[in-house]
Amino acid sequence: MTESERIPTESTKPSIDEVIILLQQADFDQLKFLLNHFHPGQLADILEAMPPKERKQLWDLIPESQGADTLTLLHDEVRNSLIVEMPTEELVAATEQMNVSDLADMIEELPERIRQSIEENLSDEIREHLETNLSFEEGTAGRLMSPDVITVRNDVTLEVVLRYLQLHEDLPDYTDGLMVIDRSGLYQGKLLLNKVLTHDKTSLVKEVMNSQHPAILATTDEHEVAHFFEQFHFVSAAVVDENNYLLGRIKMDDVICILRAKSDHALMGRDGLHEEEDLFAPVISSAKRRTVWLGINLVTAFLAAWVIGIFADTLDKIVALAVLMPIVASMGGIAGSQTLTLTIRGLALDQITNGNSGWLARKEVLIGIISGLLWALVVAGMVWLWFQDTGISLVIAAAIVINLVAAAAAGIAIPLILQRLNIDPALSGAVILTTVTDVVGFMSFLGLATYYLL
Amino acid sequence: MTESERIPTESTKPSIDEVIILLQQADFDQLKFLLNHFHPGQLADILEAMPPKERKQLWDLIPESQGADTLTLLHDEVRNSLIVEMPTEELVAATEQMNVSDLADMIEELPERIRQSIEENLSDEIREHLETNLSFEEGTAGRLMSPDVITVRNDVTLEVVLRYLQLHEDLPDYTDGLMVIDRSGLYQGKLLLNKVLTHDKTSLVKEVMNSQHPAILATTDEHEVAHFFEQFHFVSAAVVDENNYLLGRIKMDDVICILRAKSDHALMGRDGLHEEEDLFAPVISSAKRRTVWLGINLVTAFLAAWVIGIFADTLDKIVALAVLMPIVASMGGIAGSQTLTLTIRGLALDQITNGNSGWLARKEVLIGIISGLLWALVVAGMVWLWFQDTGISLVIAAAIVINLVAAAAAGIAIPLILQRLNIDPALSGAVILTTVTDVVGFMSFLGLATYYLL
Repeated sequence: MTESERIPTESTKPSIDEVIILLQQADFDQLKFLLNHFHPGQLADILEAMPPKERKQLWDLIPESQGADTLTLLHDEVRNSLIVEMPTEELVAATEQMNVSDLADMIEELPERIRQSIEENLSDEIREHLETNLSFEEGTAGRLMSPDVITVRNDVTLEVVLRYLQLHEDLPDYTDGLMVIDRSGLYQGKLLLNKVLTHDKTSLVKEVMNSQHPAILATTDEHEVAHFFEQFHFVSAAVVDENNYLLGRIKMDDVICILRAKSDHALMGRDGLHEEEDLFAPVISSAKRRTVWLGINLVTAFLAAWVIGIFADTLDKIVALAVLMPIVASMGGIAGSQTLTLTIRGLALDQITNGNSGWLARKEVLIGIISGLLWALVVAGMVWLWFQDTGISLVIAAAIVINLVAAAAAGIAIPLILQRLNIDPALSGAVILTTVTDVVGFMSFLGLATYYLL
Repeated sequence: MTESERIPTESTKPSIDEVIILLQQADFDQLKFLLNHFHPGQLADILEAMPPKERKQLWDLIPESQGADTLTLLHDEVRNSLIVEMPTEELVAATEQMNVSDLADMIEELPERIRQSIEENLSDEIREHLETNLSFEEGTAGRLMSPDVITVRNDVTLEVVLRYLQLHEDLPDYTDGLMVIDRSGLYQGKLLLNKVLTHDKTSLVKEVMNSQHPAILATTDEHEVAHFFEQFHFVSAAVVDENNYLLGRIKMDDVICILRAKSDHALMGRDGLHEEEDLFAPVISSAKRRTVWLGINLVTAFLAAWVIGIFADTLDKIVALAVLMPIVASMGGIAGSQTLTLTIRGLALDQITNGNSGWLARKEVLIGIISGLLWALVVAGMVWLWFQDTGISLVIAAAIVINLVAAAAAGIAIPLILQRLNIDPALSGAVILTTVTDVVGFMSFLGLATYYLL
């Protein structure tokens, strides 16, 4: 084995900069040569790291044989930006090589006219599979499944299975077993490849198969699917309809996609970004989406300003309050955000239930009290050093304790309430929390000051 | 197949509340009966969703046969909380059933005395494997690998391989192929199980094996490992030393753990939380860690207050400025946070390079200008309606444009600089960004007001 076959060393990774330089030099021959050595996963990575103009140039240089696979590996938004520019015939040709679940994913977002051209061009068999996939909602097992299942009957011997397998040049990716069905196509269990290898050839499939290997109902939510793959160490699993009829299978790589999308959603949702957000999207389309989020937050900001406005007279008399008030709001925001993130993750992992949410709320509020008292002392000390005013020091200390306790309570209550209302806490939790910590922070600090210091 | 064997339906999922209720009722017989029906992955999930006292009670009720597997599936922090209470003999017994990479993971954090007892109790073979794993740094392929590899020589026929496999009762999880080695143990390639099944039995291993199937160098970073598994659709891959000597293998489920830890780190790091943070940790240990984060943010808050303090005279004269100033800071914080999140994710996915970071910076700043102008107009209008003061309206509009552009520039520059300094941007990026948007926001708004309105 030579050094070049061993991965991963930095040098064997596709260099995005090298591609950009070749594009700038318009050295298309060298570029085509380079691209020919990458496989679709790497090509997709490179395309996603290109600004819009360079991305289109590069896409035209990608060898046709790699086009379909590369297309399916791109994020929706990047893929759509390339598809809209493709001639329909080219797109139709690319779809011929796509697998059914990728096709279903893509076709839904296309204009009716192009969609029809694609569907007309498909073989009857593929079109039928596509329609089955599309009959299930997005985000379910039925939409994820692929039809590339190798099935065997339960009443034959392993000898027969082996002869049947030898008719195949190769087995599909992530084939760790064959799906066992009865005469009418009902799922019976899974015959693991390693059992075929380790068992006597005269055994019957039904004796060797794992009838405990559960199938996934096509209407199952994809997050449940991911959970079960992890728990049961599946590499692939059968998908069945409500009558236990075998429809297809879900593979490990589908699950990785689900997990990745879920984590991207949790991370990006907090900032009002879509998880498919294309880093190199054109300026206008990026600005449009982001600006909506700024608008939502502006409402929060004006609400906070309105609260401050109530105490304009107080601020007019003691200007130090204006200087210090952001400290109270900011400490509440930070502490609340910690509780919020933990709670949202706990909900996503199904760790929080009716039985333990009370314990959790008490714990978080207690942490709020402890942190609040500690930092109130520190802040009061620093404020006293700065302004030499005992009244202001005491008021800010009290306000910090109040706001940190409110932040903890809000950090746990907001996601619980949002989930009950079927609103995604990962998306709107942070905005609501900031509203609470700003309002409570300004209100308690300026309110106490008005009451005690004027 | 009966309904109960089909997953996942809500009813077959372990009910955490049911467990909590049985614990409260001290109905330990029923509880033991229930726990017996869960497998280790489910038991780990349940334990992680328990408050500390209940967690310990429950742990004592878990059947011994499941103990070791359950222990390895827990997050570090939860596991450590259980281990410290276990009698050494019990812990030693549990480790006997653990696999080497889990054991390596755990043993490092144990006190020397317990560690010795465990190591003395291991078989020579396992201890040797453990030492090999521990000789590699945490976060490398060598630490992740397990020794459960089935190897074959390259100069035998498939016939021989099949006979050899039939000596095994079962193959280890995620065995999609056998590792091919030469006489001296050097890695030659992978013999996929499906090739064994589909090829003629008289073929030699070296004719059928995939010599292109790359091995992973033991010193490779785990994130690279995950990347390659995804790109090449691996289910398992060989790990070799620098001489190409086969040391072990990495499996798909290791990769899922890496991906999960990475996404948890990105999500939790922003709030100064550790990715292994135990939702149900005791109050004191949680408060300790979180309070450090509040302290760091307090520095930022005082810095912002100090900036405001410079303009105390201005605030004293125009109280409306105090009312409005949080709006400028908050809009900058939100916009900057969007750019920061996108940039950190782009860096994590290796999408941002020298060649495209310039394009990206221009794009983000341009978005900042567009959003800035749009929202400056809206805010100026609202402020005019509120205070009927053209001067203040113009000043806040200008400050918002300045702060949104600064936020975009900071959102992209901060993570790039931090990465070059080898500081994790997911951890400290948000704090630094807030400092910038607060300081620039207050400074530009109050500075412009001082200059033009006094």
